[in-house]
Amino acid sequence: MPVGTNATVKAMSSDEMKELGAEIILSNTYHLYLRPGHDVIKEVGGLHEFMKWDGPVLTDSGGFQVFSLSPLRKIKDDGVEFRSHIDGSLHFLTAELVMEIQGALGSDIAMIFDECTPYPATREYALDSLKLTTKWAGKCLKAGNKGQALFGIVQGGMYRDLRKQSAEELMEMDFNGYALGGLSVGEPKELMYEMINYTTPLLPHNKPRYLMGIGDLLDVLEAVSAGIDMFDCVMPTRNARNGTLFTSQGRISIKREEFKKDPGPLDPDCECYTCRNFSRSYLRHMFMSREILSMRLNTMHNLHFFMDFFRRMRAAVSRGEFEQFRKEQTVILKRNFKEG
Amino acid sequence: MPVGTNATVKAMSSDEMKELGAEIILSNTYHLYLRPGHDVIKEVGGLHEFMKWDGPVLTDSGGFQVFSLSPLRKIKDDGVEFRSHIDGSLHFLTAELVMEIQGALGSDIAMIFDECTPYPATREYALDSLKLTTKWAGKCLKAGNKGQALFGIVQGGMYRDLRKQSAEELMEMDFNGYALGGLSVGEPKELMYEMINYTTPLLPHNKPRYLMGIGDLLDVLEAVSAGIDMFDCVMPTRNARNGTLFTSQGRISIKREEFKKDPGPLDPDCECYTCRNFSRSYLRHMFMSREILSMRLNTMHNLHFFMDFFRRMRAAVSRGEFEQFRKEQTVILKRNFKEG
Repeated sequence: MPVGTNATVKAMSSDEMKELGAEIILSNTYHLYLRPGHDVIKEVGGLHEFMKWDGPVLTDSGGFQVFSLSPLRKIKDDGVEFRSHIDGSLHFLTAELVMEIQGALGSDIAMIFDECTPYPATREYALDSLKLTTKWAGKCLKAGNKGQALFGIVQGGMYRDLRKQSAEELMEMDFNGYALGGLSVGEPKELMYEMINYTTPLLPHNKPRYLMGIGDLLDVLEAVSAGIDMFDCVMPTRNARNGTLFTSQGRISIKREEFKKDPGPLDPDCECYTCRNFSRSYLRHMFMSREILSMRLNTMHNLHFFMDFFRRMRAAVSRGEFEQFRKEQTVILKRNFKEG
Repeated sequence: MPVGTNATVKAMSSDEMKELGAEIILSNTYHLYLRPGHDVIKEVGGLHEFMKWDGPVLTDSGGFQVFSLSPLRKIKDDGVEFRSHIDGSLHFLTAELVMEIQGALGSDIAMIFDECTPYPATREYALDSLKLTTKWAGKCLKAGNKGQALFGIVQGGMYRDLRKQSAEELMEMDFNGYALGGLSVGEPKELMYEMINYTTPLLPHNKPRYLMGIGDLLDVLEAVSAGIDMFDCVMPTRNARNGTLFTSQGRISIKREEFKKDPGPLDPDCECYTCRNFSRSYLRHMFMSREILSMRLNTMHNLHFFMDFFRRMRAAVSRGEFEQFRKEQTVILKRNFKEG
């Protein structure tokens, strides 16, 4: 899922997202609650109408953003008090409010309000945290919005037994899908892989399983192997705006002097709009001149690169050839993106 | 002519400019000389290929930018010494170099290197300045590039006789078109109108006459009445990025609180992509969130507004009904844009 934090995938129009083949977009409850306000979006017809995107939208619950963006966060039994990163105003998010916001936005898939357990966390902290998430999950389910799918979020820190406990408590409630939260929060990669590989198979195989906030393609291969179906990540879009481009030949920093007079396409093997039309020389000039078109063309390319990877991976899964795809791609990714 | 300073009309792609009906784009010799360098653009196939724009391009000569952007400018008999506004490096532009640059860029229409006479200027300064421009004009003509039209630029400050002298000296040399320079540089509007109305009829009627850097639509009506055929201005694009939008109902600042929940289009009478698709509420949210899409959608609208005005004006001229168009539009523009 490309990330459209403020009701736009940064630099892109919804039409372009459709042309790129995006099938679902993630948008942020936390950001839209603070600005322009969910009441605003509800009044003008909901998020789809607001951003003119007629495909599915998943809204996260704000749990991760409260954890990562808000200063002066206070976790209480019935919610989280925090200050807005925009204007410092004081807010209190509860499970019920998070469901009200997501209902007003009218997303197709809502996420439960969770506490994203930090890393490192003591076993005691992780246990208390997962209990809080379970409690809030129940409240979200109770407050559930008609016609909107609701996914649970498994927490439990880096403790296998707590991950299992969280998964079981959530499955008891019977959500439409299940996500793994609280990963890629600073832990070593091996520990993250261990948690993914241990937890994913515990979740229902006939429902979507979603690994939140992860987009590194080697991690994606590991997670798909474990049974994960859904991902979201700002990696392609954020890197694009910083001039870092993913190509079949590896990561390219477009500002490098060597591209100054390079008439060739960014990636000769790529079929995207940017690669079909523009030279590395132009892309470098746009970036150096801080032109808006730079962000547009770079974002278009990176999103195409990621979505093409996922398309090919899905096809391999459908053909029953995922393991072969994984082996081949692991070699390529390790060779091309070893620094990442 | 929409302005594409750095080889891109800010926020737009060349495809979008074509869809908007742009028939020619202006690009800046001064900027492209400093970055990425005309040698770079020449090596990758010229400006059209570089920015993937197959319509005509006019390049200005840098005379105005040296005057308006460069610190530590020293005007000498054979050129202008100045420091780059980007990195402070020292440069010396001459008539010959300006022609070499424009030749390398491969624009369809080049402009002579001129000294843009400041306002106010004494008669003596303005006379010396126009003599310099005439001298450089001769050098530019001599250095002329094959297959590239070259326009002279009439200077002469705010002195009728000097404007006449400049026009006559340039016409003697027989350029492909003639521009009025050194206007809208701080003088009262009446004085600018006087110079336009006096000078334009002196220039050949069977060649393009171009009023440089002017885009206010009331000024445009005055100038077309005097016989001007061509304009360029950053007004639609720069205002768009600042959230100021031109509509059939007047100037709108999209950040205003009143638009927060406004589900209607920016301009109900407008057929542009932005107005066909998005609400004022969304446009306000994009602007307040400093999203790139804000600049895109706003620019698209403002360019459509200006180009639609010019299309209707051209049609009126063709029908022999310009004076009626002028009267009607003057009433509308004065009512809607009185503060400008």
